[in-house]
Amino acid sequence: MDAVLQAKRNELMARWQEIYDLTGIAALLNWDQSTYMPVAGGAVRGRQLALLERLAHERRTDPAIGRLLDELQPYAESLPRDADDAAHLRVMRKIYERSTRIPAAFAAEFAEHTANSYMAWVAARPQNDFAAVRPYLQKTLEMSQQMAEFFPGYAHIADPLIDFADEGMTVAMIRPLFEELRLALAPLVATISQRPPVDDSFLRRNYPKAQQIAFGESVIRAFGYDFSRGRQDETHHPFMTKFAHDDVRITTRVDEHDLGSALFSTMHEAGHALYELGIDPAYASTALDTGASAGVHESQSRLWENIVGRSRRFWEHYYPALQAAFPAQLADVDVDAFHRAVNRVSPSLIRTEADEVTYNLHVIIRFGLELELLEGKLSIDDLPEAWHARYQENLGVAAPDDRDGVLQDVHWFGGPIGGSFQGYTLGNIMASQFYAAAVAAHPAIEDEIGAGRFTTLHTWLRDNIYRHGAKYTAQELLLRVTGQPLTLTPYLTYLRTKYNAIYGLL
Amino acid sequence: MDAVLQAKRNELMARWQEIYDLTGIAALLNWDQSTYMPVAGGAVRGRQLALLERLAHERRTDPAIGRLLDELQPYAESLPRDADDAAHLRVMRKIYERSTRIPAAFAAEFAEHTANSYMAWVAARPQNDFAAVRPYLQKTLEMSQQMAEFFPGYAHIADPLIDFADEGMTVAMIRPLFEELRLALAPLVATISQRPPVDDSFLRRNYPKAQQIAFGESVIRAFGYDFSRGRQDETHHPFMTKFAHDDVRITTRVDEHDLGSALFSTMHEAGHALYELGIDPAYASTALDTGASAGVHESQSRLWENIVGRSRRFWEHYYPALQAAFPAQLADVDVDAFHRAVNRVSPSLIRTEADEVTYNLHVIIRFGLELELLEGKLSIDDLPEAWHARYQENLGVAAPDDRDGVLQDVHWFGGPIGGSFQGYTLGNIMASQFYAAAVAAHPAIEDEIGAGRFTTLHTWLRDNIYRHGAKYTAQELLLRVTGQPLTLTPYLTYLRTKYNAIYGLL
Repeated sequence: MDAVLQAKRNELMARWQEIYDLTGIAALLNWDQSTYMPVAGGAVRGRQLALLERLAHERRTDPAIGRLLDELQPYAESLPRDADDAAHLRVMRKIYERSTRIPAAFAAEFAEHTANSYMAWVAARPQNDFAAVRPYLQKTLEMSQQMAEFFPGYAHIADPLIDFADEGMTVAMIRPLFEELRLALAPLVATISQRPPVDDSFLRRNYPKAQQIAFGESVIRAFGYDFSRGRQDETHHPFMTKFAHDDVRITTRVDEHDLGSALFSTMHEAGHALYELGIDPAYASTALDTGASAGVHESQSRLWENIVGRSRRFWEHYYPALQAAFPAQLADVDVDAFHRAVNRVSPSLIRTEADEVTYNLHVIIRFGLELELLEGKLSIDDLPEAWHARYQENLGVAAPDDRDGVLQDVHWFGGPIGGSFQGYTLGNIMASQFYAAAVAAHPAIEDEIGAGRFTTLHTWLRDNIYRHGAKYTAQELLLRVTGQPLTLTPYLTYLRTKYNAIYGLL
Repeated sequence: MDAVLQAKRNELMARWQEIYDLTGIAALLNWDQSTYMPVAGGAVRGRQLALLERLAHERRTDPAIGRLLDELQPYAESLPRDADDAAHLRVMRKIYERSTRIPAAFAAEFAEHTANSYMAWVAARPQNDFAAVRPYLQKTLEMSQQMAEFFPGYAHIADPLIDFADEGMTVAMIRPLFEELRLALAPLVATISQRPPVDDSFLRRNYPKAQQIAFGESVIRAFGYDFSRGRQDETHHPFMTKFAHDDVRITTRVDEHDLGSALFSTMHEAGHALYELGIDPAYASTALDTGASAGVHESQSRLWENIVGRSRRFWEHYYPALQAAFPAQLADVDVDAFHRAVNRVSPSLIRTEADEVTYNLHVIIRFGLELELLEGKLSIDDLPEAWHARYQENLGVAAPDDRDGVLQDVHWFGGPIGGSFQGYTLGNIMASQFYAAAVAAHPAIEDEIGAGRFTTLHTWLRDNIYRHGAKYTAQELLLRVTGQPLTLTPYLTYLRTKYNAIYGLL
């Protein structure tokens, strides 16, 4: 690369670093709002966040970025696809083109609308008041359809929205996959329903907060979460957030009468954090310093939470320590009973509290509703009833109201309708596919988990997935890492093996 | 005001609001850095802060601001000086003119230099390594002199630097005032030194952290600190910070073997916070939404910490509660002994730990050294020895090293040399002047303090000082509120009365 080109590349990277920093600063403001902000601080916080978003948007759509990208395009094309600079330029171009397609006035209107919609939802949900959010949802739907129209040439109107979160995925790919999964899960759920229910009542004894947090942190420290580059605080809804390459924090919530709540959310968010913390330091502060997609991100949170954290081997090692932390509460519970309890399958109303087997049915319901809404086949007015009908049909449960029905998730009230849910189930599927590849490469991983050691697994994930950041799409990553495109087989094998053992189905 | 003018005014206020928000956001980043940030987060935090400072500086010096101010100048001049809009325009113009006088390249270089200098100081102080910071300090001195040169026409080279923090104050005003104070304090210190030393050993018993914090917070809640608009966290050095009109936080540090440390720092920072929280809500998010000067700010922290919080009347009410919080530790200590202990006068090496009487001697030493450095009469090389000599001369103590000598304060390592210290003593003087006016207006204040009630005092301070924010200069405020310019008399009367009683000097 000659000096002129090098100077252009440096200018582009320096400009992008500002976008990166503005995003990290906004993440800190959001984190503070959820953790420590005094109540009256909220009034101005929204304005501060809107300012940062405007500044970032101005920079993302600055014509100077487009010019530099164009000038560097021949250089990008001279590189092999997996060269770092090729990836830098490819990802920046993707974001630049996406951002400039959406008119600034539309972006501002949508940001303001979703902020209002979110506040309306926060007020309406406890009141079970769907009517109060109906007009917001109607406008969200119309604006989501409009947003898709900024990306003409799609096969399905949801495709551009899905592409925002899970680049390259389309309705044509996801719909048959989810249908296949649904058809495989239905008999598993039905069979398990015939078995005597697992007793998990002891999970609801009194578990003091401090010991819960200490135990959870000892687990994620063993996973490899580095507290010099992160920390855990308490929030109403757990999340992972990133302020910079070396500042990736997680949050949890503690219920003193639900031992699983904080523990598994801590492992889940730590999984997200391990991903971000494992990105190549050479990508720090660039467009590659983030996960590949919503689905790949979720694959890592679910891998650590479920495949590792809810496994029999894991508890073989950790259960004595848990009993030592809660000697009175767990004296009469052996490791088998505990392992069964934290894997209890039971169709329920709330997605975030669902077990591994039924969880995807919640996601598939939402994904289907999103498509019908965007296609114009389902109206907002008919949405609450459609929700209830799908739950009855797929899970055999009926919410008594909309609070635990259509009002239960924040997603449609804080963002577009479309693209918000598929990542959860894609993540579950990928988690098993990645994990199977890890174990195939290093069969000792399973015994190590049984000994409370995670280094081989963590190192393999870092070397094969984490370090690449956003360099590869999910599909590229799957192919590179597992030798296969996205496939259901490892996931179904995992679920059947695990739940056959727990419920003695064989 | 016609519609065109109104539109210009609105545009100016909207532009200023962005500066206000960028400043509030930067304050949050600084607060996080001191409270919760994981160690590795520091690398990028400086860069994020530099970005925000650059964005704010660009906006403060935007020629559009100058144009709007010029267009609104006839309107400003048509208003009485104490009209809100006259003050808005006056204060914005002051900041605009000050900011545009300093070339952007100089401002950036100085910001980068002080960041480096601060880091060098953090490393050098524990090592007692003056040589390591000497070149930084030399550059700071040269840049401080250069900065003053951007404001030609001064009587003393320190005047422009003093004006940044204490607008309108000059060396010509401060030097004789401080000399008069020094001459009045010297015999008081000498006389007290002849008396038997006060026993304060019981303050160093073991006082558990949680009870210390709970007691301190109960006191500032009674002062009127509103925890829905603020909160208290722990940091190495206590401070007050403001993210927005309704988010004003304080920090403290707890030493389990020093009961006074957290308690009085909590009252001190709460005093700063009460000031900011008491500003007229109509000034929220404007250039007036801040204190009048460093000196006036310090007057409020010292008023609540010392005049109220170290008074005999205050402890008359609060000591039983303190004893209840620490029954074992304070069983053998009566209120008189406690009151004497927290007012013990003893010449010492460290400014921030000094008692009320000797504190100003620490400040006066620094103020004098700053002037001589700026005047070119004292070199950086000779500074450490000059420091030791002044301490010996004025306080009769000798630091064993530079760590507790010239390296003890952050000020010269995190900002210019000049203008950084006078506010502390000006604040002490003003605190007594304001308090005397409050008691003259409402003699019941003193009895109320003895009953643990602070409403009359707080309301008077809010109505007469706090609500005005930056509308008036310190001198205007003193004249309006006390009918007098800055005067030493109330302060000397306060000190003599208090310490005569404590040390039985009469």
